[in-house]
Amino acid sequence: LLASTYHTKIYHGIGDDAAVWQPSRSHRSVISSDVSVEGVHFRREHASAADIGYRALAVNLSDLAAMGARPVLATIALTIPLDVTTDWLLDAYRGMVELALRSRIALVGGDISRGAALSFGITVVGEVSSTRLTMRSGARVHDVIAVTGPLGRSRAGLALLKDTTLVQRVGNEALIKDALQAHRRPEPRLDYAKFLSASAHVHAMMDISDGLSVDLLRMMRASKCGAVVNFVPSALATQSIAHAAETDAHEWALHGGEDFELLITVERRAFRHVSMRFEKYFSKPLLCIGYCREEEGCVEDKTGIFEPLVQGGWDHLLRKT
Amino acid sequence: LLASTYHTKIYHGIGDDAAVWQPSRSHRSVISSDVSVEGVHFRREHASAADIGYRALAVNLSDLAAMGARPVLATIALTIPLDVTTDWLLDAYRGMVELALRSRIALVGGDISRGAALSFGITVVGEVSSTRLTMRSGARVHDVIAVTGPLGRSRAGLALLKDTTLVQRVGNEALIKDALQAHRRPEPRLDYAKFLSASAHVHAMMDISDGLSVDLLRMMRASKCGAVVNFVPSALATQSIAHAAETDAHEWALHGGEDFELLITVERRAFRHVSMRFEKYFSKPLLCIGYCREEEGCVEDKTGIFEPLVQGGWDHLLRKT
Repeated sequence: LLASTYHTKIYHGIGDDAAVWQPSRSHRSVISSDVSVEGVHFRREHASAADIGYRALAVNLSDLAAMGARPVLATIALTIPLDVTTDWLLDAYRGMVELALRSRIALVGGDISRGAALSFGITVVGEVSSTRLTMRSGARVHDVIAVTGPLGRSRAGLALLKDTTLVQRVGNEALIKDALQAHRRPEPRLDYAKFLSASAHVHAMMDISDGLSVDLLRMMRASKCGAVVNFVPSALATQSIAHAAETDAHEWALHGGEDFELLITVERRAFRHVSMRFEKYFSKPLLCIGYCREEEGCVEDKTGIFEPLVQGGWDHLLRKT
Repeated sequence: LLASTYHTKIYHGIGDDAAVWQPSRSHRSVISSDVSVEGVHFRREHASAADIGYRALAVNLSDLAAMGARPVLATIALTIPLDVTTDWLLDAYRGMVELALRSRIALVGGDISRGAALSFGITVVGEVSSTRLTMRSGARVHDVIAVTGPLGRSRAGLALLKDTTLVQRVGNEALIKDALQAHRRPEPRLDYAKFLSASAHVHAMMDISDGLSVDLLRMMRASKCGAVVNFVPSALATQSIAHAAETDAHEWALHGGEDFELLITVERRAFRHVSMRFEKYFSKPLLCIGYCREEEGCVEDKTGIFEPLVQGGWDHLLRKT
């Protein structure tokens, strides 16, 4: 099932007990593992096999991107219940291969096991030069906090899948497609990360996987400072679908998660420069959402009144929405 | 939960999107992923949390050992159902830490997710010098085939757990303990692998995880030759427990799997020398089980009559015993 995709540095891919590769000398190696479980991270009725495979790998690549690293290879440990067919698995694998080829990484095999729940345990390895390495702990007081794109698209996509009548109420096909695409095929921001990690002015970086509210707090805790948020950018799709669903787009943007946009902090004086260069490169702006301050914790600036930022994102142990 | 154990080369362990380390220059990196699923690889009623954690990691280290590699770090992606307590998880983690410390590897974090079935997705990374790297595809015609210890102990241990009346019928406490230990706390053969991979006469190496019958066939296929097996060493515990269970010890040794002994092929003329040195080092012999021949497939030599070696080991897709 798991054929090795082409990669120059892979000395030995699948077929043995382990894969072998030669890391380059000037770089550090980076590793990240994530598991995608049916019923928690995806549902087979909501997405095609190829989408699910793609997504499971994308989530992992996003973690590596968030360190400023270039992904090199991935291993896949599958658990499959009896009702999953070989055809389904092959399709899921095709989704992974598509992203692997596009991201220029090798799939070097892994493990398949029977089990009660379908799950994808994926480990990605990459490399990063020490100057590019960007941690979540690097934020400094007075830094500008920004995100690489508007939020809540994936959450809006999920809402569409959960309530099929919503599609009619929204009407606008382009927005529906945008939200579904964001949910089914999130784009790991490898290009943005490459660009941003090259700048010494970008002090901290992470990907927004569990929700801005939760992930910003994690970044601030790691950096031992606090954040004032004065703008939470929600996507057009988020706004229009939330409106149709009679719910708050702001909530979806703040707590929805799974957009995999990058959350960064930038040296205050350099922000304009970094932002302009970013826009020139990617034809889209860096979105400033607030700034770092000494006082710990995260607050939302509601026209002059600071309210504590509620933690509403996904916590796998507490099982909050 | 996942604290980073001490390791010199780890530049950044847990707490960020990914872990970072510096591979040494003269070595290749090796990676392997395995998933241990409740109901398939372990049962909570059969072993303590610490044993289950230990075992999940041991299986992975064994894969690395089988390449001649020195393990460096491991990541852990947990899926936990609602009935697993934090105490249970901490105990499982203790089992992993115990083995991690003994094997001098770092646990660099990973991922925790809710899910229907308890599973441990573990990825280990190690390094190996190119001269030591030993594949399963290296076997040559006329090589001696050997294993690093008698087989079937883990299968015997499983039988004891499945049928509690068996314990009484066996009687011998030392043998019972030996079988249970082999099942609950298999020892990854890192020392043997280090010794064997240093010898240029050891052409092929892999660990016996799914059963000698299946794994030998895999090795022969990878090496494009065949094998004649004339002796399948079963442990004393295997024999005595199989006898009490009124079943065939030979079957357990041949198909039982999960002993994690190493399967090797050695240059015929050098076997005596390698074997003597091995015995001197480890105070136990290398057990010769047969030889490689040109004709593909595996046969068992039953006093002059060659019978095809039945494939009775564990196949996760076919779900055979």
